[in-house]
Amino acid sequence: MSHHDLQHVIEAADKAIMAEDFDSLMAFYDEQATLVIRPGLNASGKEQIRNAFLAIANHFNHSLRISQDRMVVIEGADMALVLAEAALDAAGLDGEPISLKRRATYVFRKDVGGRWLCTIDNSYGTDLLEAR
Amino acid sequence: MSHHDLQHVIEAADKAIMAEDFDSLMAFYDEQATLVIRPGLNASGKEQIRNAFLAIANHFNHSLRISQDRMVVIEGADMALVLAEAALDAAGLDGEPISLKRRATYVFRKDVGGRWLCTIDNSYGTDLLEAR
Repeated sequence: MSHHDLQHVIEAADKAIMAEDFDSLMAFYDEQATLVIRPGLNASGKEQIRNAFLAIANHFNHSLRISQDRMVVIEGADMALVLAEAALDAAGLDGEPISLKRRATYVFRKDVGGRWLCTIDNSYGTDLLEAR
Repeated sequence: MSHHDLQHVIEAADKAIMAEDFDSLMAFYDEQATLVIRPGLNASGKEQIRNAFLAIANHFNHSLRISQDRMVVIEGADMALVLAEAALDAAGLDGEPISLKRRATYVFRKDVGGRWLCTIDNSYGTDLLEAR
């Protein structure tokens, strides 16, 4: 499924993150979505998620670059589980480059118009099992 | 969330698998659910999922034991992403013991009565990214 609709949706969301266009970014999320900010800390609902992305942009000194490499999409019952190799690059506040690879898990649902909305955004994937 | 409702739901489903009680097992799945049988092969809908579990029971010579160790549940928009360390033990057809550990990803939705139904059952977790 290398050209699944959701691949384009996620690429567009990543572009909005990098452009710090949080109005466009929020359109990809369900009103009641959950974002895992870091292990043990979740943002719930669009207001908290928007604030989290503002904080993330500051944390990475407005230099965050995101891309998804390999991606697998599993659909069931008008929902989708996306597994993705996400790459994060940024300049840290001390100027040192940051480069992270994560195996992310994203859950989407199809709304009545057939549009995919993200309900659970967990870029940590199953690594959360280690973090407890 | 060590005692989340979904922990009990998944334990009950595992008991049904081990008892080969496929009628009870199917009650845990959405009509349009998807089960990842192995990388690249999915079962879609209850009939295919039931047949897959029949084949799995035969494959493991009716000796399959399943348990979930650590578990993390992330809820968003009446859905849940469950990350679980699943342990599978069985006697192979040649009598050799089989013992597998997987980091599984399960997606559930809440139905109108508040009951959790599995929509995507992917015991391979993000390892599917390697299997392509």
